[in-house]
Amino acid sequence: MKRLLFVACLLSSFCGIAQSTAPVPTSSLGNYVLVIHGGAGTISKDQMTPEREKRYHASLNKALQAGAAILEKGGSSLNAVEACVRVLEDDPLFNAGKGAVFTAEGVNELDAAIMEGTTLRAGSIAGVRTIRNPISAARAVMERSEHVLLTGKGAESFAKEQGLEIVDPSYFYTPERWESLQRAQKRDSLTSAGTPNRSAAALQEQRISRYGTVGAVALDQQGRLAAATSTGGMTNKKWGRVGDAPIIGSGTYANDSTVAISCTGWGEYFLRLVMAKSISDRMEFGRQPLQQAAEELVMRQLPALGGDGGLIAVDKQGNISMPFCTEGMYRGYIKKEKSTGMLQTETFIFK
Amino acid sequence: MKRLLFVACLLSSFCGIAQSTAPVPTSSLGNYVLVIHGGAGTISKDQMTPEREKRYHASLNKALQAGAAILEKGGSSLNAVEACVRVLEDDPLFNAGKGAVFTAEGVNELDAAIMEGTTLRAGSIAGVRTIRNPISAARAVMERSEHVLLTGKGAESFAKEQGLEIVDPSYFYTPERWESLQRAQKRDSLTSAGTPNRSAAALQEQRISRYGTVGAVALDQQGRLAAATSTGGMTNKKWGRVGDAPIIGSGTYANDSTVAISCTGWGEYFLRLVMAKSISDRMEFGRQPLQQAAEELVMRQLPALGGDGGLIAVDKQGNISMPFCTEGMYRGYIKKEKSTGMLQTETFIFK
Repeated sequence: MKRLLFVACLLSSFCGIAQSTAPVPTSSLGNYVLVIHGGAGTISKDQMTPEREKRYHASLNKALQAGAAILEKGGSSLNAVEACVRVLEDDPLFNAGKGAVFTAEGVNELDAAIMEGTTLRAGSIAGVRTIRNPISAARAVMERSEHVLLTGKGAESFAKEQGLEIVDPSYFYTPERWESLQRAQKRDSLTSAGTPNRSAAALQEQRISRYGTVGAVALDQQGRLAAATSTGGMTNKKWGRVGDAPIIGSGTYANDSTVAISCTGWGEYFLRLVMAKSISDRMEFGRQPLQQAAEELVMRQLPALGGDGGLIAVDKQGNISMPFCTEGMYRGYIKKEKSTGMLQTETFIFK
Repeated sequence: MKRLLFVACLLSSFCGIAQSTAPVPTSSLGNYVLVIHGGAGTISKDQMTPEREKRYHASLNKALQAGAAILEKGGSSLNAVEACVRVLEDDPLFNAGKGAVFTAEGVNELDAAIMEGTTLRAGSIAGVRTIRNPISAARAVMERSEHVLLTGKGAESFAKEQGLEIVDPSYFYTPERWESLQRAQKRDSLTSAGTPNRSAAALQEQRISRYGTVGAVALDQQGRLAAATSTGGMTNKKWGRVGDAPIIGSGTYANDSTVAISCTGWGEYFLRLVMAKSISDRMEFGRQPLQQAAEELVMRQLPALGGDGGLIAVDKQGNISMPFCTEGMYRGYIKKEKSTGMLQTETFIFK
């Protein structure tokens, strides 16, 4: 299912499982590309209604417009991905910021990362409970500290010192996520956690509860790449669990010489595969095109290990890839080609 | 400065900045290799005394022997690297476990990671204050949870549930590290943190305070690779800062098809370079030998970004690399060749 909002030139290759455009001309300066996701596997076709679908498309488009407005004016990919992710964090439909899932303790613990491809600078935060927009805290870590990764209460103190908006933990409460936690805890009390013989249905439900991340990647008019990811993690997570979202090289990576990537899925498997850097390195050292490298990791290696999920990527030439091996992935892109003036925008939920 | 303990066959190539052995025969089954480090850049030649040097060599050898005893009997590389790191964690000479540096709040916060190259399973913990041997907690995360990375108090609860040894935070106190914290805080109160115009001497002192990690990598008689890293992080660290040590792909990585790596140095730069996975991917997709890949990252890309440090690595053929761009790196190896019965053991501090 896809929704076409404004497409001056629709490329049929965008309709597949893993979309990719033809390369833009070598001289891509002046063009821009923005790709976003709102999580993979969080919803099944059975549970989707036309009205609900409409809300997701509208939310994805709102985020795309926020980023595109920056890119259109010649702004940086870094500003664009942060702006997109802030919109998605503020939207309770997605598992990041407002709308984040609950931990086993009944609180919301948020993780985020951002990376700038030109300088390889990066910033991340993990396990924070009071920062309204974790992605902006990650950016502050990158730009206003000597560090890359700050965690827990320490990260919250840093964000407060930097003047970021601090909210009461209750800000993140949404009734839908609270109910998800109740269902997850009931399910877990019925099944013995960690045992391999849970029912297929329970496993499927548990899988769905793992996913939910938002992210954005962009190529700006100056040819700079950036990536940003933000998440509330897994429903009912325990023990201060952190997934791939805030980990540079796994859930988030950008390098102007290759690609910008933001992942979503069963974080543990993305960590073990060092997902984003693996794709970048296949492109750099294996001379693989983005699409081939991304599909190898997401459609083959990830399920082979037992995981699933998806990712969004844009390479230095403006090629887009959005592979996923789950039932759906909220996603969309805006692409502007300077030479022709063509602007493409699409959002998708299922394959 | 190096100390030769028992060398049946000394290869001159072990004396350089970045040591490497000639490849072992293609059929390396029955051979084993173990390499360890105790941190890079934590000490300068001026401050070293013959007596102090002797203590370091003895400690490195004790750790090597603990791991080699396992490998000699046909045990797994995973068991060997855990055993080595436990010895180094229990030794107050090194910045990991007992002997960890203090945070700005005057506590010890420990990070560790372990990875098994055969299965790509991995486990990490970050920011824990009460687990005597963080490396064993990382292994428990890998083997007894569905997760890869656990943090803070949650990770401590998990370790306790798993029956790992829990200690009072005061266990980690050592007078030397406490004095380092006092010096660091005095230095930081005299210089404006984050400003680029600190004196060269202050910067050098601050750099030295960043390093200190222990790690081990091994290739066992069955050809399996494993890597383990443990650290107390940076002296005077704030805001829940986490470095590269517990991050799979950055400070720690193992993959039977390429290499096992454990890093030490200025963690932020290792995170941005996704150090360990970058080397593995250069070997896998760029067909670079270990030594070339490791030197490119450690001797060129790391200093080019402004960072420094070193790493230890062993590839699937048993080749060793131990490059570093600091004044010294505590390190050593044991290598057993089945066909000749030769056993080599060396430990080093400076170049």
